[in-house]
Amino acid sequence: MTVPEKRVETRIDPYVDVYATRTQGLRVSAVRALFAVANRPEVVSLAGGMPNITDLPLDVIGSNIGELIKQRGPQIMNYGGAQGEEPIREQICEVMRLEGIDASPDDVIITCGSQQGLDLVTRTFVDPGDVVLAEAPSYVGALGTFAAYQAQVVHVAMDEDGIIPSAFRAAVAAVRASGRSVKFLYTIPNFNNPAGTLLAMARRRELVEAAQELDVIIVEDNPYGLLAFDVPVQPAIRSLDGDQVVYLGSFSKTFAPGFRVGWVLAPPAVLKKLVLAQESATLCPPVFSQFAISEYLSNWDWQGQIVKFRDMYRERKNALLRGLDDHMPPGCTWNDPKGGFFVWLTLPEGVDADQLSARATSHRVAYVPGTAFYADGLGSRNVRLSYCFPTPERIYEGTHRLGEALREEIELLTTFGLVGPPRCLSAAKEETP
Amino acid sequence: MTVPEKRVETRIDPYVDVYATRTQGLRVSAVRALFAVANRPEVVSLAGGMPNITDLPLDVIGSNIGELIKQRGPQIMNYGGAQGEEPIREQICEVMRLEGIDASPDDVIITCGSQQGLDLVTRTFVDPGDVVLAEAPSYVGALGTFAAYQAQVVHVAMDEDGIIPSAFRAAVAAVRASGRSVKFLYTIPNFNNPAGTLLAMARRRELVEAAQELDVIIVEDNPYGLLAFDVPVQPAIRSLDGDQVVYLGSFSKTFAPGFRVGWVLAPPAVLKKLVLAQESATLCPPVFSQFAISEYLSNWDWQGQIVKFRDMYRERKNALLRGLDDHMPPGCTWNDPKGGFFVWLTLPEGVDADQLSARATSHRVAYVPGTAFYADGLGSRNVRLSYCFPTPERIYEGTHRLGEALREEIELLTTFGLVGPPRCLSAAKEETP
Repeated sequence: MTVPEKRVETRIDPYVDVYATRTQGLRVSAVRALFAVANRPEVVSLAGGMPNITDLPLDVIGSNIGELIKQRGPQIMNYGGAQGEEPIREQICEVMRLEGIDASPDDVIITCGSQQGLDLVTRTFVDPGDVVLAEAPSYVGALGTFAAYQAQVVHVAMDEDGIIPSAFRAAVAAVRASGRSVKFLYTIPNFNNPAGTLLAMARRRELVEAAQELDVIIVEDNPYGLLAFDVPVQPAIRSLDGDQVVYLGSFSKTFAPGFRVGWVLAPPAVLKKLVLAQESATLCPPVFSQFAISEYLSNWDWQGQIVKFRDMYRERKNALLRGLDDHMPPGCTWNDPKGGFFVWLTLPEGVDADQLSARATSHRVAYVPGTAFYADGLGSRNVRLSYCFPTPERIYEGTHRLGEALREEIELLTTFGLVGPPRCLSAAKEETP
Repeated sequence: MTVPEKRVETRIDPYVDVYATRTQGLRVSAVRALFAVANRPEVVSLAGGMPNITDLPLDVIGSNIGELIKQRGPQIMNYGGAQGEEPIREQICEVMRLEGIDASPDDVIITCGSQQGLDLVTRTFVDPGDVVLAEAPSYVGALGTFAAYQAQVVHVAMDEDGIIPSAFRAAVAAVRASGRSVKFLYTIPNFNNPAGTLLAMARRRELVEAAQELDVIIVEDNPYGLLAFDVPVQPAIRSLDGDQVVYLGSFSKTFAPGFRVGWVLAPPAVLKKLVLAQESATLCPPVFSQFAISEYLSNWDWQGQIVKFRDMYRERKNALLRGLDDHMPPGCTWNDPKGGFFVWLTLPEGVDADQLSARATSHRVAYVPGTAFYADGLGSRNVRLSYCFPTPERIYEGTHRLGEALREEIELLTTFGLVGPPRCLSAAKEETP
């Protein structure tokens, strides 16, 4: 499987002359394209980022929401405010307090999933041609949104401690020297998707200092922060500065994604813009969903539930690492994430993750190739492995299958002296966080 | 109350240099700005467009949704597809069949309310500076979305039978002669918001013919079509042509808005673009909401419920018309809508609806001034009166209060020889559909 090339429109589409220029940036994401294969029951999918929510107290949630409709249906099923409902914005401030953030509900806007937060923030800041800095590798859905607003993505290097502040400074200087405008730095400090890295505490301070000096906004995307299972929950970058940071939060990983409730915490002036953008985008974010989640937070030990989620994901991660230890051929390396959903695997030199993907599928295991997470074509030796959804047994079996596929691929490459497409030759270009 | 002038940013906003150009098109809508006043309990609000959903079978809905969570929680509370879930797309095709539309679920995409449908369609077609044609007056939320994408809105005249096809042809010719690109025609054929007009059947055919000849897409926005209470449900424009029409539908007025489920029916090539845009905007539209509505449609006589809604809104409209007959001073005119939520009132010459608004508020009645529904400053003698939310008694009382405010205003204008701000002098410019 390869990341689709720039879409070439054909005469078959009669509307081709009418589309907006920005549609040229919209591609079928590599992750989505994989779903049809990955969802077959015989395939072990290490590809998706779907949380496992089977352990939620469904009886309690069902009864509470049913009762809520009977009691307050005409309110919770009608239109709401563009900023979102006040009770849940207050509860969100309690959630953020766990990461050291002291915020007012007035500075929070509800979004249709955190993805819509990204969309509204990008819409508010980015003109076509503006630069968005993004750590590399980066969340594929964020890269998609930046492309949809015709942003130019410039990557900033990371290592095992997350994004490198000096690289951030250098990138800002280089972009500005080229006469372009840096609109913000996009980062996932906690258990980065796809690399699983955690931004070191000292670096959080350095990053904020640099952002203040350079006057660059940091967009902190934090869906996984509370799913820290091998370290304590870290203070958010936002806890260090309220003016320079726009913070994106989500209930998708700590409760359930299907309600589509995320949020943005932003400085008041920015928040005003986001509310206007939300009004024009949806009139108001999902009202019923907000009350449903508010009800869950009020009536259930949601923090205890998060502890259970942590235990579950830790067990799954351990199954994956055990499997990699047992089944990966020499030359592979990977990290041990302290939380979140993902392990980042680097293949032996000469092996291309896009090419391997087809063989992996025939071995009934799926993953997302690393190139999906770079705007610049890097990542061809990398693989994102998700341990969030399958059972530990299935995960372990998946690594067995992946090991077989990989051995076959290496054997073939060795026997025939093949080394894959040209970009595999330039191994020096690969970045391995 | 006046529609806010172009927002002038001050130094107080430290981010003013960083915002995207498109944010200059985002204004606080006149409708939203009114809400704080209109929602006070002592005020009769004829301003909002909020449906009255108190008659929905809350016990049944509550039990069904509660049960659904218990039975299928892990599926309906997780991520879904960007296009929306198949069962509800099939049911939506049944809903559209009531308006003569023969469509495949493959050509339907679910959106976060019909407003997001508008957003995605505009995003897909409009580059900054492109022209969107819109009947005048037009839905304020659509004008807001067009502005957010930096479209130029060119109005097309309507009369009591809706948009005038020859005016549409003339507008296309004029825009093209000026070297600009027409991206689509936006129209609400059924019970237009704000004017309450119904597009005559012969005109629907003429409009489609003109659109085919001129090769212009029609965006048909149809939230109120099934709420026809004095005429039969009309065939949609989309029922006459599947290639030239992009159709927007909604459950907000026939069921409940708080779930935020609308849809777009589009030609396959356009639909593909919309799905990509949805993926980048939200990953997927509200999943739980889709299953909740699907459950309602499966387990309840939703068509019977719509008949009840029609009866309720007809009674409220009649209360409004009775009140206008009894309380409006000479020189006022208004229409008798055959469905939907709105009556369009034209004030006596020399009276300005924006100016009158403050006086109306002091008389504890609220409405939306007509200027909100024009992109070009017209509508100053017009008032949108909504009869959807208050009880018939309150509506009647509201017209009494409005009559008092209006008499006072006229008396003042007559006594002091005042005629309001300059634009009131040019009564010839007013368009009264």
